Amino acid sequence: MEQKEETLSTRRIFEGKIINLRVEEVKLPDGRTATREIVEHPGGVSIVAVKDNGNILLVKQYRKPAEEALLEIPAGKLEYGEDPEVCAKRELLEETGYEAGYIKHLMTFFTTPGFSNEKMYLYFAKNLVKHTAHPDEDEFLEVYEYTPENLLEMILQNQIKDSKTIIGILYYLKMRNSL
Amino acid sequence: MEQKEETLSTRRIFEGKIINLRVEEVKLPDGRTATREIVEHPGGVSIVAVKDNGNILLVKQYRKPAEEALLEIPAGKLEYGEDPEVCAKRELLEETGYEAGYIKHLMTFFTTPGFSNEKMYLYFAKNLVKHTAHPDEDEFLEVYEYTPENLLEMILQNQIKDSKTIIGILYYLKMRNSL
Repeated sequence: MEQKEETLSTRRIFEGKIINLRVEEVKLPDGRTATREIVEHPGGVSIVAVKDNGNILLVKQYRKPAEEALLEIPAGKLEYGEDPEVCAKRELLEETGYEAGYIKHLMTFFTTPGFSNEKMYLYFAKNLVKHTAHPDEDEFLEVYEYTPENLLEMILQNQIKDSKTIIGILYYLKMRNSL
Repeated sequence: MEQKEETLSTRRIFEGKIINLRVEEVKLPDGRTATREIVEHPGGVSIVAVKDNGNILLVKQYRKPAEEALLEIPAGKLEYGEDPEVCAKRELLEETGYEAGYIKHLMTFFTTPGFSNEKMYLYFAKNLVKHTAHPDEDEFLEVYEYTPENLLEMILQNQIKDSKTIIGILYYLKMRNSL
């Protein structure tokens, strides 16, 4: 049976600064209908940025939805139409002050395909050159660096709680010899 | 500087079947204000379920927000107040027909802390006993099984595109000798 849901009608609920919300009536493979609540997001980038000393850069920022400050790899949202690699270099520089001499796309994934179309483009960066950080005006960031082994321990202790960060670090640990 | 955002006012935009949406006006650490768009989600569970032959169970289902069918580890959303481990065993049984003789919590993470409070509780299950699958009435699932090595290759080829699934598999590959 082909797994496809045809849109029968769409109701736009909200248009925001970061996300929009729409509700769709869809036709299921067996002909019945169902409702799908869909958060529209422009997509984001995140970067596993490795310094010459082998440490990985993280930023700590308060996340209102989580109601706590989280340690995350540098990341940001795409402007509509923006090239993800350009965005990744920009966000890395703005958030950490480091310019990437080398950058490479690792993979792209859906963060929450059950209720959002957000795609996350994950990059690896090295040959970092230090400049000055310029976070967005409503961002309050602290920059940290840790060894990959430290970060694995922090994942296993559940001190790192952000999905893209866990993916980036586990991927790097698995594949760093071929990057 | 303490990284905390105090809520000044809340506007409720939408109450849905799966998600709600609210918009908050918050006070930043420097005293200025900003807007935060927050998708409320009851939280979810997902399960790395390993058969006695070493294969990992996956389900394929059409995800309307992604507009494609995705291969994912079995997962589901929490009922409000439900114990995540009870939910994980229930979802595994409903989606795949397998009952877990052994289940263990691996970690909990935020899927998208930038715009949602969704927490994902990740479990490991083994000693599986086959019964009959009973998916929800609006779920059309196909059950698959792959070796861990196959799944790593599929991640590297970007054929697996779901964040919780990538985390579950990479975590399992890293830690399986101590599970």
